[in-house]
Amino acid sequence: MTDTQQGLDQQGYKWVGTRSIRPDGLDKVTGRAQFSADLMLPGMLEGAVARSPHAHARIVAIDTTAAEAMPGIRAVITGADFPDLTESDASADVVYRSLNVIARDRVLYHGHPVAAVAATSRELANAAAAAIEVTYEVLPHVLNVEQAMADDAPVLHDGLEGGGNVAKKLTLDRGDVEIGFAEADVVVEREFTTKPVHQGYIEPHATVAHTDESGRSDIWVSSQGHFSIRAQTAAVLARDVSRFKVTPAEIGGGFGGKTTIYLEPLAVVLSGKAGRPVRLVMGRGDVFRATGPTSGTSMRIKMGVTKEGRIVACDGTLALEAGAFPGGPLNGAVMTALACYDIPNFVVEGFDVVCNKPKVHAYRAPGAPMAAFAVESVIDELAAELDMDPIDLRLANAAVEGTQAYYGPPFARIGFVETLEAIRDSEHYQSPLGPNQGRGVGCGFWFNMGGNSSVTVSIDDAGGVSVLTGSPDIGGSRASAALVAAEELGVDLEEIRITVADTESVGFNDVTGGSRTAHATSAVLAIACEQLRADLCGRAAATWSCEPDEVEWVDGRAQRTDGSAPPLSVRDIAENAARTGGPISITATENTRGAGPGFSTQVVDVEVDPETGVVSVIRATTAQDAGRALHPSYVEGQMQGGVAQGIGWALNEEYVHNDDGTLDNPSFLDYRMPVASDLPMIETIVVEVPNPKHPYGVRGVGETGIVPTLAAVGNAVGDAIDTRLHDLPLTPMRVLAASQP
Amino acid sequence: MTDTQQGLDQQGYKWVGTRSIRPDGLDKVTGRAQFSADLMLPGMLEGAVARSPHAHARIVAIDTTAAEAMPGIRAVITGADFPDLTESDASADVVYRSLNVIARDRVLYHGHPVAAVAATSRELANAAAAAIEVTYEVLPHVLNVEQAMADDAPVLHDGLEGGGNVAKKLTLDRGDVEIGFAEADVVVEREFTTKPVHQGYIEPHATVAHTDESGRSDIWVSSQGHFSIRAQTAAVLARDVSRFKVTPAEIGGGFGGKTTIYLEPLAVVLSGKAGRPVRLVMGRGDVFRATGPTSGTSMRIKMGVTKEGRIVACDGTLALEAGAFPGGPLNGAVMTALACYDIPNFVVEGFDVVCNKPKVHAYRAPGAPMAAFAVESVIDELAAELDMDPIDLRLANAAVEGTQAYYGPPFARIGFVETLEAIRDSEHYQSPLGPNQGRGVGCGFWFNMGGNSSVTVSIDDAGGVSVLTGSPDIGGSRASAALVAAEELGVDLEEIRITVADTESVGFNDVTGGSRTAHATSAVLAIACEQLRADLCGRAAATWSCEPDEVEWVDGRAQRTDGSAPPLSVRDIAENAARTGGPISITATENTRGAGPGFSTQVVDVEVDPETGVVSVIRATTAQDAGRALHPSYVEGQMQGGVAQGIGWALNEEYVHNDDGTLDNPSFLDYRMPVASDLPMIETIVVEVPNPKHPYGVRGVGETGIVPTLAAVGNAVGDAIDTRLHDLPLTPMRVLAASQP
Repeated sequence: MTDTQQGLDQQGYKWVGTRSIRPDGLDKVTGRAQFSADLMLPGMLEGAVARSPHAHARIVAIDTTAAEAMPGIRAVITGADFPDLTESDASADVVYRSLNVIARDRVLYHGHPVAAVAATSRELANAAAAAIEVTYEVLPHVLNVEQAMADDAPVLHDGLEGGGNVAKKLTLDRGDVEIGFAEADVVVEREFTTKPVHQGYIEPHATVAHTDESGRSDIWVSSQGHFSIRAQTAAVLARDVSRFKVTPAEIGGGFGGKTTIYLEPLAVVLSGKAGRPVRLVMGRGDVFRATGPTSGTSMRIKMGVTKEGRIVACDGTLALEAGAFPGGPLNGAVMTALACYDIPNFVVEGFDVVCNKPKVHAYRAPGAPMAAFAVESVIDELAAELDMDPIDLRLANAAVEGTQAYYGPPFARIGFVETLEAIRDSEHYQSPLGPNQGRGVGCGFWFNMGGNSSVTVSIDDAGGVSVLTGSPDIGGSRASAALVAAEELGVDLEEIRITVADTESVGFNDVTGGSRTAHATSAVLAIACEQLRADLCGRAAATWSCEPDEVEWVDGRAQRTDGSAPPLSVRDIAENAARTGGPISITATENTRGAGPGFSTQVVDVEVDPETGVVSVIRATTAQDAGRALHPSYVEGQMQGGVAQGIGWALNEEYVHNDDGTLDNPSFLDYRMPVASDLPMIETIVVEVPNPKHPYGVRGVGETGIVPTLAAVGNAVGDAIDTRLHDLPLTPMRVLAASQP
Repeated sequence: MTDTQQGLDQQGYKWVGTRSIRPDGLDKVTGRAQFSADLMLPGMLEGAVARSPHAHARIVAIDTTAAEAMPGIRAVITGADFPDLTESDASADVVYRSLNVIARDRVLYHGHPVAAVAATSRELANAAAAAIEVTYEVLPHVLNVEQAMADDAPVLHDGLEGGGNVAKKLTLDRGDVEIGFAEADVVVEREFTTKPVHQGYIEPHATVAHTDESGRSDIWVSSQGHFSIRAQTAAVLARDVSRFKVTPAEIGGGFGGKTTIYLEPLAVVLSGKAGRPVRLVMGRGDVFRATGPTSGTSMRIKMGVTKEGRIVACDGTLALEAGAFPGGPLNGAVMTALACYDIPNFVVEGFDVVCNKPKVHAYRAPGAPMAAFAVESVIDELAAELDMDPIDLRLANAAVEGTQAYYGPPFARIGFVETLEAIRDSEHYQSPLGPNQGRGVGCGFWFNMGGNSSVTVSIDDAGGVSVLTGSPDIGGSRASAALVAAEELGVDLEEIRITVADTESVGFNDVTGGSRTAHATSAVLAIACEQLRADLCGRAAATWSCEPDEVEWVDGRAQRTDGSAPPLSVRDIAENAARTGGPISITATENTRGAGPGFSTQVVDVEVDPETGVVSVIRATTAQDAGRALHPSYVEGQMQGGVAQGIGWALNEEYVHNDDGTLDNPSFLDYRMPVASDLPMIETIVVEVPNPKHPYGVRGVGETGIVPTLAAVGNAVGDAIDTRLHDLPLTPMRVLAASQP
């Protein structure tokens, strides 16, 4: 990559929009970056977790005697060491989270924690965990939406809101679908299924906790939000957040999956019992068995269109697996399903359904890719039926500024049409296809969040700028914050240092998720820098013995309006800080709003091997509205990453459960994620339709890019083999079976 | 200790003035506190320093070949690896500091670093350091003021300001001493000497540094000021401070001695060369040979008094050893010498004199105890000549509010007279003495500093308060800051957490020295909390949908002036922060002024064993004006610590050098500091004359308490044996010789 903008408009910015070297790069390539599993503390113990071998069972008894008697064992804990929150005023979410951290009377999935130990070595800990004797009474299980919603299904939790295993229902509707379908010239109705897929982050979960004699705990953890880890850990332990300090480690991938707690409360309680720090590290098998994949789904979409290409009605059902506890991505699925379009009549009904698999958790635009897979597949069929170009059909129905969003308020300025046009006009979309090849288009939407952010900016006496944020950097937020700080203060980028600080050292920050962090951090940083510039001007005025209003900030320097003195740079002013008011340091906080809806359109070409059914993605182009690309290479990386993950989800990834409910493929050998050789270089078109609610126009970019991909790949395969498949993943077996006459 | 105030007036405060449990106590008694030598990093190397065996020598050649060829050696450095600052625009102080860190062409004292190595183990590092071959040309040396000021003395540095080995002269004068002495009825003139004594902190110096490929360095260090360590390290390496991040470790004592650099630049350069983190740890021998003790002195005081007890003239000379480089505590000695008194005519001349011993460094009220030893001994003799009570003579001449201070401006409100009266009226001062016992009084003054401080205060959603400071806690500044934060915000003390943050995480803070930290931190914290209360009231107004001016802060809660809603506590408001403006976090900074002069009066009883000359301190009472004792136990501890160190200095401590200039007693076995069994329980009287320039009236307290002790002990011994001794320490040998007729 070079410093040129590849078509992006830098609009007079010096730093924003450049492809600067990432500030975390050196530490990562040299191996110096510290992940939580790297932390060593004096006296630290190693822990291990004993997990359920059953998908569903009653815990009759747990005998820890043998484990406790083993050499080097310093603590053994079970659910009995945790507060029972069922009678407390804790929310249902907290109660479920607590039960997911460690089982009490029942285990609800293969891998559910039942006990944990801390010992002087990992080998001893593993041996002791294996020596814990749990007596189970095995119960019948359900593994997916169909089984869980069957009339005679065993019910996992009493009293769920939706009845049986249905934890929640959510319906969005507008207009009258019957009237709508009556206006339609073509109606298509299809059913779809998708499988649970894992976020697949490289770094397994790990944590170190140290609980002191007063009951305060230090936690070190790689997560997407250490303030959130603090809050969740405190909640399940029924303590105040003030009793915890959480220090972020470098993070090796999250994609939504590192926004919840698994090991942290176990380590805290083990440490409290042992009186020493305790480290817990998951293996890959633990990650697959017991951390959140996203939902498997069962969906139905019926859509009607006039012969002129106006979508007039949609009727859909989206049933999503929640896993062992309520709380799948129901909102994300239902509320995004039709968000790209302006449809007068619709009813979309969704179900959050529990089953005996690990509790699902957020995965990049949670819920949206599956819903888009169903909707965009049907739209593609409608376009084919109408003999319309699939992009033209979408353009004819696209949401624009002022459209009342499917999920509610009218859209402010958005860039969906621009992404459609970018793909339509791309060389890729115009290029010819060869034999056994197919092309598919897909579109997607994601809300993007704002939320709470805090920054502290301090300037040292050499003019170096230190920025403290409390948001872990999972996709370049340090790089983008550095660019914004350099831009705002008129100093060289290399003078900016960004630190992701612990929960004691910076104001509260919401989780790095919802594609909020670059947006919110840069917005709050701009506020801080505005205050700083005023402070710097005031100090310049003190230096010049003039009034503050006789000083203005021009080109990164304080300038005396009457020109009677040479301008003062940040460094000039900082060197003199002790004489003009003391150290230069400012904190700004805000609950930011208006993160700016994000849209993406993608085109994917595949080639299907007629002998084996293997699908190769031979070309993929993604266009996305980033609002303003603070750091284009990171934006492109996010867009490429979304497509890469979407391709894996569409073609190969799935959880394979045995009939007894145990997971059969808990490793990267058997769970097939795409590797570099599976993918083409993914082409990117960064669209920049500024978000009017952000000082630089930034929108979230991290999640939108995965939303269209399942559909685009599915549509491409359908085009290649001339037969549409409605069940993911599109494994060679399925494709071969479908493509054979 | 109990919660009662022992006579201190808490003036309606809830927390300020209480004897709370120290926040660092648990970590220290459990061994969890991390000092710099405790830090372990992956791949960390151990370093060792090769030091000069000579007091003065030219370095002819350094051959590192053998050392570099040894197993496990990763880096060897000499002075040639450091920038030569002599031709730069660096100040003389920086140049001298650089030369003290590592010698270039000459070594100037026994222990002066000449090279350093980093290896995979400490044993290998020590072996390699020993294998470095240095060819020296030994030069003549001078070991004290007398030798260094002799006409034929070898000169250590060319071109010193005062000529020869005199680096600097400083004279304070007022009135006309000839006229003054003419008015005097009694004149006493005496000469005094004191020896270099070490601060004697428990924890030897240690540091870990990691320099990355871009030339940025992380430093972990136990110090009295990591911002200052950053600045000094940057200066001697001719880099910007922005290139360094310094993280404070817990500190095991400093007393002024940990305000400078020794190992840090060596570790930085070794790490840069080795590409790995490097730890350097001093042994006790290194500490004695190569870190700063305070000056040995040679002093003369002539003082005249009328028969009514009015001191009318003083003429004094104070010559202080600087050690190998200029910069002893000349100012501290000259400018405090007569500060307790209102004397119309004086001339006090001081000399900063270099010699071939380790560069002296700050030690608790640097320079003042020696000057007070001389002045207070003479005053005691004058009182005896006049047959006046020594306290009455001092009261007759005491500085009070409005007195033009000896060193300059008129005093604001001060409490010297109150300390004299407290001792005069004490049961101790009235108690009878037994045979071979004597009683001595001494007084002392210290300026106390203000300086730059920054704090960041954040409130979590359980109402817990996190305070970030950049000032290492050497004497209870965390405890006192916690009390102030609790007082200011109306929250329970246990909700306050104080963190000493690294140089990236908080605004600039001056060194913890000059007794400035409790004063400055609490002053800036009060500013931050005032802003916070305004913020909290604004948020309460937002909650109540009323105007901010309809809310006031009463008793730790936001209260609606019309009483229409129940008041909101910090926790109530914090829980709702996201809806009232986002996270609650505020930074305040200030270059504080007016730390408030401190005075102390002490009375010491000794018993002299007539057979051995051993002096036992049998009772000691110290009265000191603390302005406001934020945490009385800590104030008392500081007062007791000062007296304990003063007793050691007066009776036993001294550096013993051989004729060849090497240090003969570099260990606690041969350098005799007082241990618990050498001391009585030191009684304290905390005087509280509020400092008008601080919101709580706080004055610095850490240093003043050592100033009177040398004199009080000396006067007591003089009283006991009826012979005055003028040379410290008052060893059994000297006392026995003097007390035998």
